[in-house]
Amino acid sequence: MTGAEARAWAYLSRVAEPPCALLAALVATFGPEDAAERVRRGEVADELVKLTVARRDLDCAAEDLETLAKLGGRLVTSQSAEWPHYALSTLAVAEERPASQSQPPLVLWAMGPERLVDVAERACAIVGTRAATSYGEYVAGDFAAGLVERDVAVVSGGAYGIDGVAHRAALAAGGVTLAVLACGIDVPYPAGHAAMLRRIGREGLVVTEYPPGERPARYRFLTRNRLVAALSGATVVVEAGLRSGAASTAAWARSLNRPVCAVPGPITSASSAGCHVLLRDGANLVTRAADVVEFVGRIGELGIEPHRPTGPLDDLTNVERQVYEALPARAARTADQISVAAGVPVERVFGPLAALELAGLVARRNGRWQISRDLTRLEGVAE
Amino acid sequence: MTGAEARAWAYLSRVAEPPCALLAALVATFGPEDAAERVRRGEVADELVKLTVARRDLDCAAEDLETLAKLGGRLVTSQSAEWPHYALSTLAVAEERPASQSQPPLVLWAMGPERLVDVAERACAIVGTRAATSYGEYVAGDFAAGLVERDVAVVSGGAYGIDGVAHRAALAAGGVTLAVLACGIDVPYPAGHAAMLRRIGREGLVVTEYPPGERPARYRFLTRNRLVAALSGATVVVEAGLRSGAASTAAWARSLNRPVCAVPGPITSASSAGCHVLLRDGANLVTRAADVVEFVGRIGELGIEPHRPTGPLDDLTNVERQVYEALPARAARTADQISVAAGVPVERVFGPLAALELAGLVARRNGRWQISRDLTRLEGVAE
Repeated sequence: MTGAEARAWAYLSRVAEPPCALLAALVATFGPEDAAERVRRGEVADELVKLTVARRDLDCAAEDLETLAKLGGRLVTSQSAEWPHYALSTLAVAEERPASQSQPPLVLWAMGPERLVDVAERACAIVGTRAATSYGEYVAGDFAAGLVERDVAVVSGGAYGIDGVAHRAALAAGGVTLAVLACGIDVPYPAGHAAMLRRIGREGLVVTEYPPGERPARYRFLTRNRLVAALSGATVVVEAGLRSGAASTAAWARSLNRPVCAVPGPITSASSAGCHVLLRDGANLVTRAADVVEFVGRIGELGIEPHRPTGPLDDLTNVERQVYEALPARAARTADQISVAAGVPVERVFGPLAALELAGLVARRNGRWQISRDLTRLEGVAE
Repeated sequence: MTGAEARAWAYLSRVAEPPCALLAALVATFGPEDAAERVRRGEVADELVKLTVARRDLDCAAEDLETLAKLGGRLVTSQSAEWPHYALSTLAVAEERPASQSQPPLVLWAMGPERLVDVAERACAIVGTRAATSYGEYVAGDFAAGLVERDVAVVSGGAYGIDGVAHRAALAAGGVTLAVLACGIDVPYPAGHAAMLRRIGREGLVVTEYPPGERPARYRFLTRNRLVAALSGATVVVEAGLRSGAASTAAWARSLNRPVCAVPGPITSASSAGCHVLLRDGANLVTRAADVVEFVGRIGELGIEPHRPTGPLDDLTNVERQVYEALPARAARTADQISVAAGVPVERVFGPLAALELAGLVARRNGRWQISRDLTRLEGVAE
C-alpha cells in the first residue's frame, strides 16, 4: 500500500459513518484514491453527498496514520493479504438485519502480531453481559481456555464482564484472542481494560472500523457486534440479561448462518435470562468448550460424548432384572420363593440366576441365592 | 363393584407383574371374575400361563382388600367412574417404548379424596433427581406452588429430592397433588416420606399398580414412571443427573406425545446435566410455572411474556441515535459540531435534536445542545 493509498483509505474510513454501502460501491468502482477525491469534491451521488458532506472537509488522514504507526498498527483493507474475504463475504447478504449495517467493513484499523485471516479461519466469539456473575466468569474462562487449547481463537468485544474474562483466559492459556472495538484503536475503552487491550495488541489482535480518536457509542456497539459475529465461526453467549448486547451479536451470527450457542444458568439469575431466551429461540445449548468446537471446528471434529456413569445392573435382561430385584436386601431365597416374588415360572429362574452369579451379582449357598455382599440393595432401587 | 368382582381384580393385580397385555386382553374378553378363574385353573394361552404360573396359586385377594379398606382406600379399574380413560388411552399406542410396558394399568390401588379422572384432566408432573440441590428444591417448590395456584395438580413419584419438594409445596399451597408409587399402597417407601405420603392420601391422591405389600424395585420405578407421564398433561424435569429416573419419565411423556419441559441450571452442577441433555433433545425450556401452564393448560391459556426492561433511547430512529451519541458526556455542542461528530449533514441534525429535546433527552442552551442532566452518559454506552 502506497502512502497516498493509505491516506485515501484513512480519509474514507472517517468521512462517513461505517459501514456505508454507497461509499464501498464508490471505492469498488474507482479505487480508494479516486473515490476519496470524488467524495472530497462532492462529485458523487446525492445520497452519498448527504452521508459525507458533514465530514468531507475534515482531513486528518495523515495524523490518523501517524497515530496508528505509533501504536505499531496497520490498515487492513480488501486489498490486504490478511483480509478475511470468506468470513466477511456473508455480511452483504445477511438477512433480517438492517440493510444499512449489512455491509462488510471498508477499512479495519488493526494492531497485533496475528493475521486477521488466520484468526478468522478458526475462531469463536465468547460474549456476554458486563454484569457477569462469578458463575458466568468461571464459565467464560473455562470455555476460552478450552477453545484455545483446541487451537480456536477467542473473539470478543473487549468489554467488562464476560468479554474481558474470555480475552484474559485466552491470553493466560497462551492462545490467540481478537478484540473488536467500537471506538478508535487508540481509545482506551473501557478505561479499566486499557492494559488488557494493549496486551491483546501485543500478543493477539485488535481491530476496529473506527478511525483513531472515535469514541464508542451505542449504535457503534451494535455495528461492532456484527464484526464479532462475522469474524467467528460460532458465537457463544455465556451470560446475558434480557436486554443485552450479546443478543445482538447472537442475532448477527444467526443472520450470517453461523451457529449460535448459549450457556444455560440458574433460572433464578437475571444474568442468564437472555441465554434462556436464546435457547428457546433455537440456540445450541453448550456446556463444555468441546461442545462448541463441533460448531467452529473442521468438519468431522466432533465433541466426545460426556461420560455417563453406568451400573452393574445396566446390562441385565428384563427377566434377569426381575429375578435380581426379587431377592431381598440380606436374606437368601430358594428358587421357588424367587419364582413367586419375581412372578417368573420356577423353571425360568435358574438361567437368570446363573447369569447373575457369573456377573458376581448374586451368590449361591446351600441351594439358596442372595445378593452379593459388596453390592448394596440401594443400587437396585435407583431413582 | 361387588365383593367377588373386587376380589377378582385384586387377584388379577397380583398374579402377573403389571402391566401384562395378555392378562388385560383376557379380562377385556371375559370380565374380571371369569378371567381370574381361568388364570387360576391355567386355562389360558401358553404365554399367559408362563406369566402367571408362579403366582396363580397365591390368592391373598381378601387380605389385600382388607389392607386397602383399613387405609380407607379403593380399587380403581376401567369400570370405575373415575378411571381416566383419556389420559391412559395413549399408553397402548406409545411409540419407541418397550411393548411390554406400553399398556394401561389393569387395576389401580388408590387412596385419597381426589378423583383420579379429575386430577388427570389438569395435571403436570414435576420430577427430578433424589440428589436435589438447594437450587433444584427452590425451583421445584416454586413451580409446584405456581402450578396449583393456576389449578394444576402436581403429579410426582413420592421420592426424595425433587419429587418430595413438589408434593409438599403443592400441599402447602392448598393444591392437589398425586403420588404414583412403585410399591404397594401400604408400603412406606421411602421411609422418610411415610408421613408425607399419608398426608397425600388424606388430602390428595395416592395410586399404584402394585398390590399391598409389594416392594419397590428398579424395574417398577421405570414402569411407574409411565403412569406419572400418562396421568400428566406435561412433564417438567427440574433437576436430573445424566443417569436419572426423571429421564425415563420424560421419555414416556414424549412417547405419549405430551410436552416435556426441563429447567436449565448451572452447567457446573451435575444435578442439572440431565436437564441439559433433555433440552438439547428438544425439551421445552421453562423458567416459570406460567411457562408450563401453556403446555398443560386449556387452549388459549398462555404465559405472559416476561417483562423486558426498556430504556429511554430504545425508541429513537437511527439518525436520532447518531445525533444523541455525538453529544459528549457533559459539554454542550453547536449544530455544526454535532453534524461533524455524528457524520450527519448539518441541515439534518435539527429535526433529530428537536425530537430529542421533546423526549427530554437533550437540552438546548444558547444555541448549543447538551445531554439532559438526569441521564448519565453510561446509558448511551450500553453493552
